[in-house]
Amino acid sequence: MGFGRPSQPATTRIATARAGSNIAFIKYWGVGDVTLNLPLNNSISMTLGDLYTTTTVEWLHPRLLGADEVSIDGRVQTGKAAERVVRHLDRIRAQAGSVDRARVVSRNNFPIGSGIASSASGFAALTVAGCAALGVNVERDRLSALARRGSGSAARSIYGGYVEWERGTDDRTSIAHQLYPADHWPLLDIVAVVNAGEKAVSSEDGHRLALSSPFNSARIGTLPAALSEVRAAIATRDLQRMGPIIEQDALAMHAVMMTSSPSLVYWQGGTVDLINAVRRWRTEGILAYFTIDAGPNVHIICEEAQRMPIMERLRALPNIHQIIVSGPGDGPRLLDTHMV
Amino acid sequence: MGFGRPSQPATTRIATARAGSNIAFIKYWGVGDVTLNLPLNNSISMTLGDLYTTTTVEWLHPRLLGADEVSIDGRVQTGKAAERVVRHLDRIRAQAGSVDRARVVSRNNFPIGSGIASSASGFAALTVAGCAALGVNVERDRLSALARRGSGSAARSIYGGYVEWERGTDDRTSIAHQLYPADHWPLLDIVAVVNAGEKAVSSEDGHRLALSSPFNSARIGTLPAALSEVRAAIATRDLQRMGPIIEQDALAMHAVMMTSSPSLVYWQGGTVDLINAVRRWRTEGILAYFTIDAGPNVHIICEEAQRMPIMERLRALPNIHQIIVSGPGDGPRLLDTHMV
Repeated sequence: MGFGRPSQPATTRIATARAGSNIAFIKYWGVGDVTLNLPLNNSISMTLGDLYTTTTVEWLHPRLLGADEVSIDGRVQTGKAAERVVRHLDRIRAQAGSVDRARVVSRNNFPIGSGIASSASGFAALTVAGCAALGVNVERDRLSALARRGSGSAARSIYGGYVEWERGTDDRTSIAHQLYPADHWPLLDIVAVVNAGEKAVSSEDGHRLALSSPFNSARIGTLPAALSEVRAAIATRDLQRMGPIIEQDALAMHAVMMTSSPSLVYWQGGTVDLINAVRRWRTEGILAYFTIDAGPNVHIICEEAQRMPIMERLRALPNIHQIIVSGPGDGPRLLDTHMV
Repeated sequence: MGFGRPSQPATTRIATARAGSNIAFIKYWGVGDVTLNLPLNNSISMTLGDLYTTTTVEWLHPRLLGADEVSIDGRVQTGKAAERVVRHLDRIRAQAGSVDRARVVSRNNFPIGSGIASSASGFAALTVAGCAALGVNVERDRLSALARRGSGSAARSIYGGYVEWERGTDDRTSIAHQLYPADHWPLLDIVAVVNAGEKAVSSEDGHRLALSSPFNSARIGTLPAALSEVRAAIATRDLQRMGPIIEQDALAMHAVMMTSSPSLVYWQGGTVDLINAVRRWRTEGILAYFTIDAGPNVHIICEEAQRMPIMERLRALPNIHQIIVSGPGDGPRLLDTHMV
């Protein structure tokens, strides 16, 4: 390679970080500024303690590693997935003025193809490990801004517990902050995995279509009141107050998706069966509410007392491939750093 | 009975009328004036030739029949269903200044509980038979206005073929008219019956909730352009032009339903499976588009050449209880009138 810092000694620096995925109660859908990944609206989520990505980043001098290498869940990545990670490595390199190459090894503790979004935890862990290994020492809110550039929802996974991502107006202000730590409210996210297939349209592409829906601006218009209700409901641990708002916003987001051009239907039949089931269960006294990300799986939000009755009912339903449960968790953790 | 016209001889007058149901391409959803049943928007439909209601109305002097009697598909009606018919009989009586009582016998040629809307064909046939039997001789557009009072979409079933219902501003102007007769374009409506159960919320009640959705006014805002496209597509028999518009409006209507307060989810799992299937079939070269009324069943709109490949594919899917096919049909027909 004809560039780099040939006068420096070859160094190898490694860091490993773990970050939780998150489930949004008020969804991020629709990107305003594509380059900076500025969202059209604030969002609120719970960082998941039991569904996480563990990522090791090893920086090497270009003489030792000609190009970035990315492995996710044991598979070497190529094409779009690899390019997305490399673009993020470029952002981390830019922070340190480095031209080193990275060897990235990332593992999700939730099954591949379970339909659980791994980009939030993945880009949060990549940001934390990549920066630490390269000696980029910045405040947490800068990590949130940096993670956002990789994947919008990763901005939230930089914090634990209950988190709000402020839309902001530029790279500096579009960052998340913690509303309450994980131990404030031990909610559960019971994920009913309906379909483990790949999405036809990635959420990265979908975000750009939001503005083409006639419903997008109406949804955005409802959010100040919805965000305020969800913040208040989290503050007072009031699921009955929060539940109807999060169901409404999940349906509203999917309505925006379905009516965008082209129309995006992320649901499968099992998705709607579960929507109807959760609502039926409530009439039977089971306090639980659904939310749905950009995919077919249904996240059932409840408290511990409802875990068993819900698990029993889910097991009795057809077309559910898998059930995964997580409580809230802490922010990213650096497991290991060393310099060789 | 202490009222009536005791000086008149007791007469019995009978008429039988048949009217087709219809499938809307641009949906009627949301009522502005509840008393007059004025809709929030124009709608366009195809009157169905093969799915119809046949209704006999027999008027009798109150001395001979103490109260209206209503039978639908062999079952004597009581409660809300009967009251709704009696209110419509009152409107017909008011046209003639009559106090006679009616014996109404109505039969649908499509299976009870198939989920196919019977109120459009039912109130159209009731209006035509009831007026004819009572000697109320009015223009077709007055019958459309009168039928509208019974059930909004019945205003459209007063005409055959391709029909537009003008929203209008009062009882006189909120009427349907024919765009093209049935033989203009032999489209097919292949109805995939997903669930034959009763709706949890009737569409009559649902119409009143439309204004509570944050998306309602945005949907209404898209309709002038959508109506104009559908009119033009029907004029030129261009299914590829019409199809995307009707899918979009069906999804938009259901989005309004799902985001109203309370939220109405008329879909079942099978509904979404069929949405995805129809779109998949198009990538296989099958020109067909879906629309969905206020219920779980999916109406697949296509031309004759696609009938067989679609039927084969539908038969291979699970969770489809029934498949019913109809082409376009003529307006209501008076089968029989006589005076006893």
